[in-house]
Amino acid sequence: MAKRRYAVVGVGGVGGYYGARLQNAGFEVHYLLHSDYEFVKENGLRVDSIEGDFRIEAVAGYRDSTHMPRCDVVLVALKSTRNHLLERILPPLLHKATTVVLLQNGLGEEERICAIENVGTVVSGLAFVCSTKVGPGHIVHQDYGSVRLAGYRGSTPGSRKAAEEVAADFAAAGITAEVEADSRTARWKKLVWNIPFNGLSVVCDTDTATLVGSPPTRELVRTIMIEVVEAAQALGADVPKSLIEPMIENTEKMRPYFPSMKLDFDANRPMELDTMYKIPLERAGSAGVRMVRTEMLYRELLVKERARRVSPKLQQ
Amino acid sequence: MAKRRYAVVGVGGVGGYYGARLQNAGFEVHYLLHSDYEFVKENGLRVDSIEGDFRIEAVAGYRDSTHMPRCDVVLVALKSTRNHLLERILPPLLHKATTVVLLQNGLGEEERICAIENVGTVVSGLAFVCSTKVGPGHIVHQDYGSVRLAGYRGSTPGSRKAAEEVAADFAAAGITAEVEADSRTARWKKLVWNIPFNGLSVVCDTDTATLVGSPPTRELVRTIMIEVVEAAQALGADVPKSLIEPMIENTEKMRPYFPSMKLDFDANRPMELDTMYKIPLERAGSAGVRMVRTEMLYRELLVKERARRVSPKLQQ
Repeated sequence: MAKRRYAVVGVGGVGGYYGARLQNAGFEVHYLLHSDYEFVKENGLRVDSIEGDFRIEAVAGYRDSTHMPRCDVVLVALKSTRNHLLERILPPLLHKATTVVLLQNGLGEEERICAIENVGTVVSGLAFVCSTKVGPGHIVHQDYGSVRLAGYRGSTPGSRKAAEEVAADFAAAGITAEVEADSRTARWKKLVWNIPFNGLSVVCDTDTATLVGSPPTRELVRTIMIEVVEAAQALGADVPKSLIEPMIENTEKMRPYFPSMKLDFDANRPMELDTMYKIPLERAGSAGVRMVRTEMLYRELLVKERARRVSPKLQQ
Repeated sequence: MAKRRYAVVGVGGVGGYYGARLQNAGFEVHYLLHSDYEFVKENGLRVDSIEGDFRIEAVAGYRDSTHMPRCDVVLVALKSTRNHLLERILPPLLHKATTVVLLQNGLGEEERICAIENVGTVVSGLAFVCSTKVGPGHIVHQDYGSVRLAGYRGSTPGSRKAAEEVAADFAAAGITAEVEADSRTARWKKLVWNIPFNGLSVVCDTDTATLVGSPPTRELVRTIMIEVVEAAQALGADVPKSLIEPMIENTEKMRPYFPSMKLDFDANRPMELDTMYKIPLERAGSAGVRMVRTEMLYRELLVKERARRVSPKLQQ
């Protein structure tokens, strides 16, 4: 059987890393590029990874998805703040059996993807990777690297099988890939980490190591995590409280890390506030759970975003 | 009767402003100076005030309180983070009937003052003034200006009368001065404003106008104020919820303002976290009230203070 052909939409720290790993393992990969197009066509992709540095010299890069071939799997790794572009980007990439993998944090975007013309099977993906695009076509993979995939039930009955196929491809490329039964559970589990660390790194202007290394914020992280677990449970997701302590301990073992929202804020990019805070708060509210601290953090982030728009130079 | 002789300890935006106003009205005022000593001895004090600019040319300034005369009233307007110095500063300024006025925000410092050798009558003071020291001996008074005074019951039976006497002197200097029955009530009322606006201006990196002008933080300010009122009531202070809406509306009418904690943070001075957060949280806890959002704000501020110490240049 021929190897599946991949498209990568959003060639940043996550999409660029996994795309390059798949191509390095012999998969055909097509990249939709944006600001890096010229540079990457000329210089290829460079990946500095804890698992070994490598380069992709010949990159099949495009400025526009209408010039790309139809692919078997589309990895969507845009910032979720740019997902409104997918309505235009996705249809030219799809054949009848294409699997769209949404490799993003947060909640609520699968619905949007499913509503796009010709989208069939959707797989929810979560990347557990500390990987950052540090310059044009230059990705630094600092820590971890696994993915978790789950068929999105709202799409097609074959979504579970599609998740397993993609997981097998990732495994063939040397990437740990686990398939979970329930995409909602997978997403909420990751929110248990993302909600405290992303927001607090922005409002406290610091990294993960300082947040877990200082007793006051370590305890705050824990109480926020408890809120998220309780919301997830109220919504029927299988997220146990026992997740929390190992998660804090693992964060302590990581090298000091700026979560993606902190990098976005510092680079004056929009923060992923809707998928990471607004929608989770709404879903929790619909189940009768008020996430008091999460809501406070969201409000603080909203006004920081606003203050930055009013006077961008103050943030430099 | 001769006019009362004043000492001002802490010649910043608050102490400098009221000291200069008293001297301008004919009171004898002695100033304990620190970093501004040379400049003020040579150039005097300059007050740019919405109520009229003026200068004090002849300033009785000192580097050391042991060289100062004993005074009838000592206005303590240091940053509360420097109150540990008072044990050394105060005794040389005191005669048998000296009134010490603690013109600071926050809670818990009257006890410390009362424990100092020879301290008798203590008056709690709160300044409702937007006034900032913008350079050596240069004070800009931007808005408001009244004080509230209350005898501190833990000191002497004459504390209420002492508060009235000081209020009369302030009134003679054109400053609105009200006497309240209960210092605890006065302090908690001011905390209703201080706890949300000081902390949020630091973590959201913005001013009062943006905080009350943005619906998400306006609502957050309100919920924090409710927490403070409920804690105050549980402790027996007479602080009604009806205080909240007018306070928010008045803040909206103020010109955009950076609260003192924001100025301290930006200038790399220690923040008044103990008197404004730690002690109020402890007192509330002792009455069985958990101030969830106030506690979260305090934890965020603690780690910001810590992150700054680790790497001060990041905050510039």
